[in-house]
Amino acid sequence: MAKERLKKQIEFIVEIDKLKRIFRQNVVIETLEQENDAEHSWHMAVMAILLSEYSSTTDLNVLRVLKMLLIHDLVEIHAGDTFCYDEKGNLDKLDREQSSADKLFNILPSDQAQEIMDLWHEFEAMETHEARFAASLDRLQPLLLNYNTDGHTWKKPGISSEKVLKRNAVLEKPVPQLWDYVQEIIEDSIQRGYLER
Amino acid sequence: MAKERLKKQIEFIVEIDKLKRIFRQNVVIETLEQENDAEHSWHMAVMAILLSEYSSTTDLNVLRVLKMLLIHDLVEIHAGDTFCYDEKGNLDKLDREQSSADKLFNILPSDQAQEIMDLWHEFEAMETHEARFAASLDRLQPLLLNYNTDGHTWKKPGISSEKVLKRNAVLEKPVPQLWDYVQEIIEDSIQRGYLER
Repeated sequence: MAKERLKKQIEFIVEIDKLKRIFRQNVVIETLEQENDAEHSWHMAVMAILLSEYSSTTDLNVLRVLKMLLIHDLVEIHAGDTFCYDEKGNLDKLDREQSSADKLFNILPSDQAQEIMDLWHEFEAMETHEARFAASLDRLQPLLLNYNTDGHTWKKPGISSEKVLKRNAVLEKPVPQLWDYVQEIIEDSIQRGYLER
Repeated sequence: MAKERLKKQIEFIVEIDKLKRIFRQNVVIETLEQENDAEHSWHMAVMAILLSEYSSTTDLNVLRVLKMLLIHDLVEIHAGDTFCYDEKGNLDKLDREQSSADKLFNILPSDQAQEIMDLWHEFEAMETHEARFAASLDRLQPLLLNYNTDGHTWKKPGISSEKVLKRNAVLEKPVPQLWDYVQEIIEDSIQRGYLER
């Protein structure tokens, strides 16, 4: 059968099929069924292709943005999805996700395990232009789903426009025009009753 | 509200949410629920990142491969998924998909509509290294799902190992080592009774 290196790569590719069964708080427009992480990752990757012109840096490495977006939720295969407004769940989130990353990425040949680990850490640290741009899309994509489902997730207990604004403020520097747009959407959502002021 | 250009981009991004509801013949491993096009596109994009080293060309443009993989099934939003072994459905597939592409991509600002149209045509024509590499993954990904679900799709009427081999022969030149692997998997699938000889 396949050589050792390819065998490891294929084993990983088969293992990450599980991302299609990790469900998020957001719902798909029209069906209102929970979106999964694979769908979410794909949607953001297309957004990155279309919206890179809004980056405040002119030399954004779109390939690295895409890699980060495509792999950043893989750690949820073992750690599960943590709702962004779940304060308790977010306390040990990073520990749970690091254990998951160790278990999952090490299925790969060591050089690729390291590459994916580095991309994930870069995404989480939000220090590079690429990570900040990726993080911005990770806010904008669920906002668009919420806005187009009458504020589905925003109607859960304890969510307010203040919390949503604070979470989305990440867009301010990396993508200022998108940040303006997001603030308009949030204001409009309050007017429409999708979100409490 | 948002400027005209951004408005068109956002409208497109919201519209393509529908890809999450276009179901394929393949099933997700373990749940055996039908996979959708968004999940399929995401899965192949990760595969492209991990398997680019098998390309027979040394200067493969991985960014263009990713772009093609992420957008190539969008035309199915209006045209639907055509089963690859459905001979009748494949007769008018391209016409149906071109109409769908015209309707869908033109939501975008014209320069981006053209970019996505060009990427889709490049994928379909299978003439560039990038398109052939992308097409190879578009064969390998469902093969891996079939192999890991006891040959789920291969058990449908009229499918034989000869047809599966012919469909996968696309891998021979762009990714010769993966083509060797695919032939081993197909032979093993026959032995296991997942696929008729």
